[in-house]
Formats: sequence, structure tokens, C-alpha cells
Amino acid sequence: MPQRRTVFFVSDGTGITAQMLGHSLLTQFEGVEFNQVTLPFIDGVDKALECLERIERESLRGSGQPIVFSTLVNGDVREVVRRANALFVDFFETFIGPLESGLGVKSSHTIGRSHSATDKREYKQRIEAINFTMAHDDGASHRELSEADVILVGVSRSGKTPTSLYLALQFGVKAANYPLIPEDFERGQLPEALPAFRQKLYGLTIAPERLQEIRRERRPGSQYADPANCRFEVEQAELLMKREGIRWINSTAKSIEEIATTILRELKLERHVY
Amino acid sequence: MPQRRTVFFVSDGTGITAQMLGHSLLTQFEGVEFNQVTLPFIDGVDKALECLERIERESLRGSGQPIVFSTLVNGDVREVVRRANALFVDFFETFIGPLESGLGVKSSHTIGRSHSATDKREYKQRIEAINFTMAHDDGASHRELSEADVILVGVSRSGKTPTSLYLALQFGVKAANYPLIPEDFERGQLPEALPAFRQKLYGLTIAPERLQEIRRERRPGSQYADPANCRFEVEQAELLMKREGIRWINSTAKSIEEIATTILRELKLERHVY
Repeated sequence: MPQRRTVFFVSDGTGITAQMLGHSLLTQFEGVEFNQVTLPFIDGVDKALECLERIERESLRGSGQPIVFSTLVNGDVREVVRRANALFVDFFETFIGPLESGLGVKSSHTIGRSHSATDKREYKQRIEAINFTMAHDDGASHRELSEADVILVGVSRSGKTPTSLYLALQFGVKAANYPLIPEDFERGQLPEALPAFRQKLYGLTIAPERLQEIRRERRPGSQYADPANCRFEVEQAELLMKREGIRWINSTAKSIEEIATTILRELKLERHVY
Repeated sequence: MPQRRTVFFVSDGTGITAQMLGHSLLTQFEGVEFNQVTLPFIDGVDKALECLERIERESLRGSGQPIVFSTLVNGDVREVVRRANALFVDFFETFIGPLESGLGVKSSHTIGRSHSATDKREYKQRIEAINFTMAHDDGASHRELSEADVILVGVSRSGKTPTSLYLALQFGVKAANYPLIPEDFERGQLPEALPAFRQKLYGLTIAPERLQEIRRERRPGSQYADPANCRFEVEQAELLMKREGIRWINSTAKSIEEIATTILRELKLERHVY
């Protein structure tokens, strides 16, 4: 029986930062199963007391001391939650002191600063990126391609849509995407609208075996999902990209985050954070 | 002149976690302008040396000691970067020791665990959520609504699409969304496909003044963007939701993350982390 532990991500905001860093630390402990609970918007002492009670209840169940990952900013709230019989991992207070010394500035200890809609200009840029990306998914529109930060190309189901959406939502990047289809391979040319924007083009490719798996789930028994056809399309797409001088990345074993990050770095696009 | 500092987010992976927690700490320092640089995929000593050089160059420019936020897992890599003349904020090593003691388990110190495509089942669930959400944006399809985890409703431009996409990408939630339009208000009823799924419905509303601003940018001078029309639509949508017993949230001053997190909590949906 593997060890089981309950983990709480506690935040005065959305809890996304606590959850993300906490999760990345927990992946380092292979033999343990974690039961993960996120408690967002703990922004007052009343809610902190409910939260304390919840953690205490878990701790009394006797399956090991719970772990609390906290990004709580408010000292009063934090002190309440800290009273729980738990391993308290404090992402905020641990670093805020050294940063205050290093910068020679007192922190404002204001809650709800990250993941909030405080900067109107940034927020607008993000929403515009999302609108642009939705309007330019899967070659849906040739309009305003000059505004794109990046135009992804690749065969159907190589990961273009999730990558485009992530670029827009997480980084505020305007990402269009175009499929490379058998007609393009026959002509031996990129879709017509694209050569004018060669500097913004970036390719996704994928192992034919993986492509076939994905396509088979969508259209079993089709020519589209046929192994020989998948091999042919990938080979042709890579040939075309090579001939056109388009950089590409193989998405097969990569996460959406890894693909998006690689593209940002290679195209030297700015990384916003929301 | 405000103080300016250069900040590096250094990671053996995508750098997203380092950037997110670092950013949430920096928002606490109001008088300082931060020049933010992300250095992802620092996964070997060679790259660590390049990274060290980059930070040292910045430090020699004499505009204050740089700050390094690190999620580096590999000890050899970390020790190289740590040699820089910088305030080194170590998100990994600071907490891994206490966690090892608390769990009684040694960590594996394996890099690239978070934001990687290691768990195939989770990855598939996420991609399916994205596909579902794209296919059910803006009332595009009535098919398979029974598979939705949530169905968002609200007037045009109340924030349904960004929220749906975020729910899918960040949390693996299948989120459909339907506009509430003047025809629905005339009939005084929800779009036909929806009453069968009342338990999954969640509303977004917005201040009429804000709605008008957003709509005016898209279609200046239109009836769609007219102040009286915006007021009317919002009022009618809220009336309809109240009558139908649909919970809602006001998106006006909220970020996508805050809206999405609130919906997850209220519908008691599981929060995955990618």
C-alpha cells in the first residue's frame, strides 16, 4: 500500500499559483499518493477559521499529517491557518522578507494582486489575443494575418489548436493556425495566404504512429486515420517545411506548455504573465 | 525615478511555475519597475553557464542586484546559477527538504516533471476538454451536451469564450457556452437545448457600461453597442437567469482566472492541474 497524504492549496486568490508550485514539488515524491484539495478565496479570518477546521478534520483521520501549501498574503489570515496540525509550506512569507531586504522596499501585503484584472491594458491585450486566435483557428480566416505574432502550420491533429489557445490565454500572443492538407502537398506549396508571412511561420510535426492513434479515435477506419496515409502526410509536411525554411518542433512527447514555451523562445516573442 | 530591477525566472522546464510565483511576489512591491526575463529549459551545466553569464552581465550594468527566481531541480545546474551576483530565490530547494522530512521519503530530484506530458490519461482528458469546448463555443453545437461539465450562458461579450477556454486548458473541464440573445428575451425562455441540463448551467453577467465599451470597440455606432440596448439585454438576461434558478457571477472587474475558479468551486468540479 502506498502512503497517502492529503494536500491543501490555500490562497486568498484563485489558488492557481499555490496549486502549480505545490504540484511541481509533489511530483518529486513518487511513492506517495496525494489527495489534493484547493481552498481559494480565503480572504478573511472567518474563512480562515473554516479552512482551519477543514484541515484539522483531515488531520484527525489519522492518515498522516496533512500538507498545506499557502500563498496567503494577509498575516492575520495566515496565522489562523498555520495553527492547524499540518506541515505548513509558506510560499509567500518565506520569500517576502529576503525580497524586502534585497530591494530595500517594504512590501504592500495586498491580497489578490496576481491573477486579478488590475492592469486594464494587459487585460485588453489578452482578450484581443484570444479573439484573434479563435477567429484564426484551423485556417478559418486570412484577414489581418499581418497582426499575428505567430502562424502555426502542420498536418491535421498535430497539436496546433491547443498550442494556439495556450499561447493566447497564458501569454497574450496572437496565434493563427493553418492545416497543411493533401492539396498543399500535391501543389508542393504552402497555403496561398502564408508565404507573405514567412518570418512568423512555425511548424508542428508528430510521429506518424501517434498521429494515427489520435485520428483513429476521431474517425475509425477512415483513409484519414490510415497508417500509410499518416506516414505520407507527415513526410510531405516535413519536406514542405524544410523546403520553405520553416522551423518546426515535434509535438509527440511534449506538453502544450513545452511546445508553447519553445515557440516563444525561438521566435523571440515576449512572455507576458497573467 | 522609480527603482528598476532585472528579474530572471530560471527553470529546467518551461519556466511557467517560476514566472507565476515570482510574479505574484513582485506585485507586492509597488514602487519598483521590474524588467522580467524568462530562461526556460536550463537542463544541463552548459546551459547553466550561459545563464550565469547572462545574469552576471546584467549585474555588471550597475542598476541594482538582479533577482533570480529558480525552480531548478538538478543540484549541479543550480549550483552554477547560484554563483551569480544576484538575490537567489530558490523555490525548489527551500521546500524540498521540509517535504522530505514531513513525508519520510526522499525526493527523486527528477527534472521536467511539471508541465510535461508524462501522464497520458490526464493529457488525453485535457485535449478532449479542449476539443469539446471548441466545438461548443457560442452555441455552435447542441450535440453531446450531456457530456459537458458546465454550460455557461450570458449576453454576447460577457466573457463566456475566454472563461470556457481557460476551464478547458487549465483544468481539463468540458465547458460549453451559449449566448442569451434578444430572441430568448422575447420568448422569455432559455435556448431550447438548455433546460434539460439546468444543473450544469452557470451565468455570466456584466455591468452595462462595461459591455457597451467592449461592444463599441467591435461595432461602433451599432444597435448592438447602444447604451440603452446593453442595459436592456443585461437586465433581461439577469431576469431570465433569476427565473430559471441559474446561479451567476458578475465578470466586470474579474480576471478569467477568478471567474473560472469561482465556477469550479460553486459547481464543485474537480480541479486538475497541468
